[in-house]
Amino acid sequence: MSELRFDLIQGRWVIIATDRSRRPHDLRSVSQSVTEPSFCPFCPGQERRTPPEILAIGRPPNGAPNGPGWQIRVIPNKYPALSVEGDLERRGVGLFDRMRGVGAHEVVIETPEHEADLGTLPDEHLVRLLRVFRDRLADLYRDRRLKYVLIFKNQGAVAGATLAHPHSQIIATPIIPRIVAQELNQARQHFEAKERCLFCDVLNEELERDERIVLENPHFVVLAPYASRFPFELMILPRRHAAAMTAITDEELAALAGCLGEAARRLHRVLADPPYNLVFHTAPNTEAFLTKPGAWQTLPHDYHWHLEILPRLTQVAGFETGTDFYINPTAPEEATRFLREVEGAG
Amino acid sequence: MSELRFDLIQGRWVIIATDRSRRPHDLRSVSQSVTEPSFCPFCPGQERRTPPEILAIGRPPNGAPNGPGWQIRVIPNKYPALSVEGDLERRGVGLFDRMRGVGAHEVVIETPEHEADLGTLPDEHLVRLLRVFRDRLADLYRDRRLKYVLIFKNQGAVAGATLAHPHSQIIATPIIPRIVAQELNQARQHFEAKERCLFCDVLNEELERDERIVLENPHFVVLAPYASRFPFELMILPRRHAAAMTAITDEELAALAGCLGEAARRLHRVLADPPYNLVFHTAPNTEAFLTKPGAWQTLPHDYHWHLEILPRLTQVAGFETGTDFYINPTAPEEATRFLREVEGAG
Repeated sequence: MSELRFDLIQGRWVIIATDRSRRPHDLRSVSQSVTEPSFCPFCPGQERRTPPEILAIGRPPNGAPNGPGWQIRVIPNKYPALSVEGDLERRGVGLFDRMRGVGAHEVVIETPEHEADLGTLPDEHLVRLLRVFRDRLADLYRDRRLKYVLIFKNQGAVAGATLAHPHSQIIATPIIPRIVAQELNQARQHFEAKERCLFCDVLNEELERDERIVLENPHFVVLAPYASRFPFELMILPRRHAAAMTAITDEELAALAGCLGEAARRLHRVLADPPYNLVFHTAPNTEAFLTKPGAWQTLPHDYHWHLEILPRLTQVAGFETGTDFYINPTAPEEATRFLREVEGAG
Repeated sequence: MSELRFDLIQGRWVIIATDRSRRPHDLRSVSQSVTEPSFCPFCPGQERRTPPEILAIGRPPNGAPNGPGWQIRVIPNKYPALSVEGDLERRGVGLFDRMRGVGAHEVVIETPEHEADLGTLPDEHLVRLLRVFRDRLADLYRDRRLKYVLIFKNQGAVAGATLAHPHSQIIATPIIPRIVAQELNQARQHFEAKERCLFCDVLNEELERDERIVLENPHFVVLAPYASRFPFELMILPRRHAAAMTAITDEELAALAGCLGEAARRLHRVLADPPYNLVFHTAPNTEAFLTKPGAWQTLPHDYHWHLEILPRLTQVAGFETGTDFYINPTAPEEATRFLREVEGAG
């Protein structure tokens, strides 16, 4: 069982995952390559190599669970950072604060095709994938111990992928992670001052200026954020104000699939298969949630869910790690020009 | 000239360094190795390859500037993220906030020896190096436009070093970076509640528990923080409460050099030359400083300067980048046991 510990000095929770405890010789190199085909545990026919599935999509009606024939498969992570059993047991340890590592850690195998990626999967398949994300989110939010669910994808070894087969991860946490808490606070402050959604305001400002809009459709806008941390960073914003991704309609799902596939194809064309992280930011779970010891807030109707694509083309070094202050060598306006000029190889 | 832009949604400043603008083909791979010897611009005899020096230590009295004979050399960064000319020109751009990239970006060439590192340099040399850091900090803080100075070191390619020759960097910024602002806020809240320094309290708690103390001397304590983000993360805390590193005495400089060298040797022994970031956290510059638009605070006497050593043995992937929530697979108590058991090869 892992443990959550509060960093009193920096004001953030950390997961100490003693279950996957690493001794010095396990730590001697950060992997810079991903595991290759022959024994891929995510390929069809290898289902017994993974923990029993939570959900599978696309298998024919007579297909048995944990056999082939699926189109998308959701499994528990074999080495979970957090696990679902038991109570949080929040307590103080002298000056310090801890709780048990209660949560969930799932893997979404996005396709049976080992060589695919978000840019090569057909839009209909991306719709199925996004629907799986939405449904897992809604399901995990039934458990009121889980305050936040992060859906994310590591594409490429440099971005943290350890297996090449296309997959995403879902981690449900018993606290609101700091970046999300910070976004909630910014949105709240803006709403209190102006009675308008911060994200809607940013979207309108960007659409009016039209310097950082990469692509758009009737439901979503893909833009390079004004203060991007990373070169070619993108944000995908729904035009319709909604706090949580669970509110997405079928029509919006199709529109999001279109944007996401096209954004992936354009990044691939401009940057030659870049490593990237894809993250979903959505409202936290509960009506009253704890951002840090002692600070309860109410459900943020002023939040606005969105996706972030964070290409990993620059090193996150001492300056960034020591200050959370980023140096981005590519202006988002310049990234936008490159991404507008290429058409996706769809 | 680079530009600082405020991320309204995440509440943090970002440097858009358009001077070192990177086009797509420059971005196609994150360097995983460091530049090798023959043309090292930091080696003695190559002084003309760098911008003219700001400071050099150890050259004989008759030695000319920008020639060999130095022991430590401070130069402006050839590709600075921030530069010292002109006014900040803070202004709004519609909804957004920006200022010019005013600041400083220096490189400290730590030794003439290309193959040295913090663990092999003699303690007397580390004292000289730490004195250079202190003096540069004091000098840069004379410029009241500069609100914060970060001294940091990237050791190894994975930690962001692009040249192998031992060097550190100093970046002076016109804003307080978010992690430092967060530490200041945590320290302030703790002080307001208890009229005690948060860092002194943490230090006392850790000394009493003695589970995470790696080494100590009369002036400094090296410990593995309770909520370490990274495996084998270390914090070096001065026992004497002082907000800024500029307050260090000569006796304390010698004690810090001893700790730092010994910590580097032990990490090297246990982890076989790990990549790491070393960062100095000290109080910001001014009596009144701006943490974010509209929020002025006064000089934080409740802060307590310190060093952090952050080994880079795990990937910072989508979960961490998307949430600022870290998964650490090695408990700090376990790291402490390994680091206590080895003696440095001093």
